[in-house]
Amino acid sequence: MKSFCIGIDLGGTNLRIAAVTPAGERLDTISLPTRLAAGPQAVLDDMASSIRQIVERQNGELLGIGVGSPGPLELPLGVLHHPPNLPGFDGLNLRAELERRIHRPVQVNSDANLAAYGEFRLGAGKTFGVHSLLALTLGTGVGCGIILDDRIWQGMQGAAGESGHGPVDPAGPACPCGARGCLEMYASATAIVRRAGELGISSRGVNGSAAPLTASSVADLATSGNPRARQIFDEVGRALGLSLANLINALDLPLYVLCGGVVAAWPLFAPRMFAVVREMSYVYRMSMPADPSVFEPGKTHIAAAQVADAGILGAALLPLAAGAIEAA
Amino acid sequence: MKSFCIGIDLGGTNLRIAAVTPAGERLDTISLPTRLAAGPQAVLDDMASSIRQIVERQNGELLGIGVGSPGPLELPLGVLHHPPNLPGFDGLNLRAELERRIHRPVQVNSDANLAAYGEFRLGAGKTFGVHSLLALTLGTGVGCGIILDDRIWQGMQGAAGESGHGPVDPAGPACPCGARGCLEMYASATAIVRRAGELGISSRGVNGSAAPLTASSVADLATSGNPRARQIFDEVGRALGLSLANLINALDLPLYVLCGGVVAAWPLFAPRMFAVVREMSYVYRMSMPADPSVFEPGKTHIAAAQVADAGILGAALLPLAAGAIEAA
Repeated sequence: MKSFCIGIDLGGTNLRIAAVTPAGERLDTISLPTRLAAGPQAVLDDMASSIRQIVERQNGELLGIGVGSPGPLELPLGVLHHPPNLPGFDGLNLRAELERRIHRPVQVNSDANLAAYGEFRLGAGKTFGVHSLLALTLGTGVGCGIILDDRIWQGMQGAAGESGHGPVDPAGPACPCGARGCLEMYASATAIVRRAGELGISSRGVNGSAAPLTASSVADLATSGNPRARQIFDEVGRALGLSLANLINALDLPLYVLCGGVVAAWPLFAPRMFAVVREMSYVYRMSMPADPSVFEPGKTHIAAAQVADAGILGAALLPLAAGAIEAA
Repeated sequence: MKSFCIGIDLGGTNLRIAAVTPAGERLDTISLPTRLAAGPQAVLDDMASSIRQIVERQNGELLGIGVGSPGPLELPLGVLHHPPNLPGFDGLNLRAELERRIHRPVQVNSDANLAAYGEFRLGAGKTFGVHSLLALTLGTGVGCGIILDDRIWQGMQGAAGESGHGPVDPAGPACPCGARGCLEMYASATAIVRRAGELGISSRGVNGSAAPLTASSVADLATSGNPRARQIFDEVGRALGLSLANLINALDLPLYVLCGGVVAAWPLFAPRMFAVVREMSYVYRMSMPADPSVFEPGKTHIAAAQVADAGILGAALLPLAAGAIEAA
C-alpha cells in the first residue's frame, strides 16, 4: 500500500492541501480560497473536509499531517496571535482545533519555517548537502526560517526567524510591526510596489493598461532598462545584503536561501546584495566561494530557492522527522 | 583525591591559567604577560609550563584543559587566522601545538564563546535556568557567543557570534574588519574613548591629570552629568538596542547577557538600549518582562553578566561537557 503525508498551506488568500510522498513527490492538491469572511471555524472545516477528500482519493496509509500558517504563531502550542494576514484568527489554537475535527495528531509551524524546511529537505539544502541553512522568503512580506543541525530552530516562543523585521535602517519607513526600516520594508513584493509609487512609476508605463503595478511588472520595467525600476532592485539588494551580513556574522551557516516570488528578479538585485555582503561581513569574506553560483564545501553560499512551493512540501514532511524541531 | 580542570585565557596583554573545580570554583591562578614580542612558540611554552606548575601545586586529578583565544579562530581545528590582537600568530594551530607540549587533549574555543559558556554554566544562565542564551562581551572589541540548547553554537568555521561586526549603521565609521558602522564601533571601550576624543572630552576634565582617557573615566564623567559623555553612552545604548533587536528577531532566545568592562556603565546605556529594543523588535514586545530586572519564565531577558571572568571559567568547564559544542 502506498503511503503519503498531507501538507497544508494556510495563506491569507488561498488554502491548499496536498498529498506528498515521503520522498517529497506531490500526488494530489486541493486549492480553495481562504474564507476569511466566514471566520476561522469555516476555514478549519474546509481544511478538515479537504483532508478527508485527499485521504479517500489516495486510499493509502496517511503518515502525518503538517500545517504551515502565517504568524505570529506561538509554538509549540500552535496558537495564533493577531496574525495580520488572517484577520479574525487571533487566539485560535490551530493545532487543537484541527485535531479535534480529524481525530489525528497535527503538526503546526510557521509558513516561513516550513519553507526553510522544504528547501532543506528537497531543495538547495539537499543539493548542497548541508545540515544548516537560513531561508528568507521574499513575498508579500519577508519571512525567515532557520534550520540548525537538521532541525527547525523555532526559538522560545516560536518567533525565531522574524528577521524580516530586523532593522536595516532605523530611520527608514514605518513598518506595520511597529518598528522602522525593517528588511520587509525594502525586500518584499509589497515594498517594491510601494517604492515604484514613490518614484512615480505608473502601471501605464509597464503595459499601457491601468492594471495595478506588481513586483513582477516593476521587475519587467527594470529588465527593460528603466533606471528608477533598476534603482528599486538595487535597494532590495542593499537591504538583503545588510540583513544577510548580520545573519552571517551571527550564525556562520553554510547556506542562505532566498525564496518567494521576488527571487525571480535575482539578476536585478543579486549583484548589489553580494557586493554589500562582501563589504559588511568579514565572516563571508573568510569563506567566500570563488564563484557564488558554484557550490564549494566549507564556503558560505547565498543561493536562490530550488523548489517551487517548498512551504507545502515542508509542511508535509515535517511529521516524518522525529526531533525536527528545536526550541530555545 | 580532589579533581580540577584548567582554564586558560590567552589575551593580547595577559595570559592567565586557572585551576577550577567541576562546580566552577577557582582554586589557583597564574597570571603572566603575553610575550607577543617573543613569538607564539614562547607563549605556548609559557602556557605549558604554567599548566605543569598548576598540576604540581594542585596534586589532584586533572579532568581537562580548555583554552580561550581571541579570533578569528578556525574551529574545530583550533587554527588562528590573522588575529588582530595576537600579531605573529597567524596560521598557528593552538590546539595541536599545546597538545604536543603537554601530551594531553586540549579544547580550544574563542574567548567570546567561552565567556558565553561561563555565563551559561555559572552566571545569568544558571540563575535564570535557561538552555539558550547569547552573550555580548563589551571590552576592547565586542565579542559574541551563542549557546543553543546547552551547546556552544560555533558555526561552520567557528565564526558564529561575530555580531560585534554586524552592521549597525552602514554609513558609520570604518571598522578594522573592513566594514563600516559595526556594533564594535559604538559599544566597545575603544569606541567610547574614540568618541570622547571626537567630542572634545579631555582627560584633564576627568581627573585634572594628563592620564589617557579610558571608557571608565568617560563613564565617571557621564555619571557626574557631563552632557557629551552622557551622549556617548546614549549612542552605546542605541547601537546595542539595534543589534539586540536584530538578534532577538532572528533567534528568539530567553536571555541575552552583556559582559565585559563596559557593562559597569549599565545605568548610563541601558535606558536607551531597552527603548530601542522595544521600538525595533516586535518579538521582544511579544515577550517583554514587566520589569526587565526581574526574571519571568517565558519572557525575553536582557541582563548584565553575573560572573566575573566568565571566560576563564567557561574554558575550564568546557572539557567536562560532552557534546558542548555544536557546529553548522
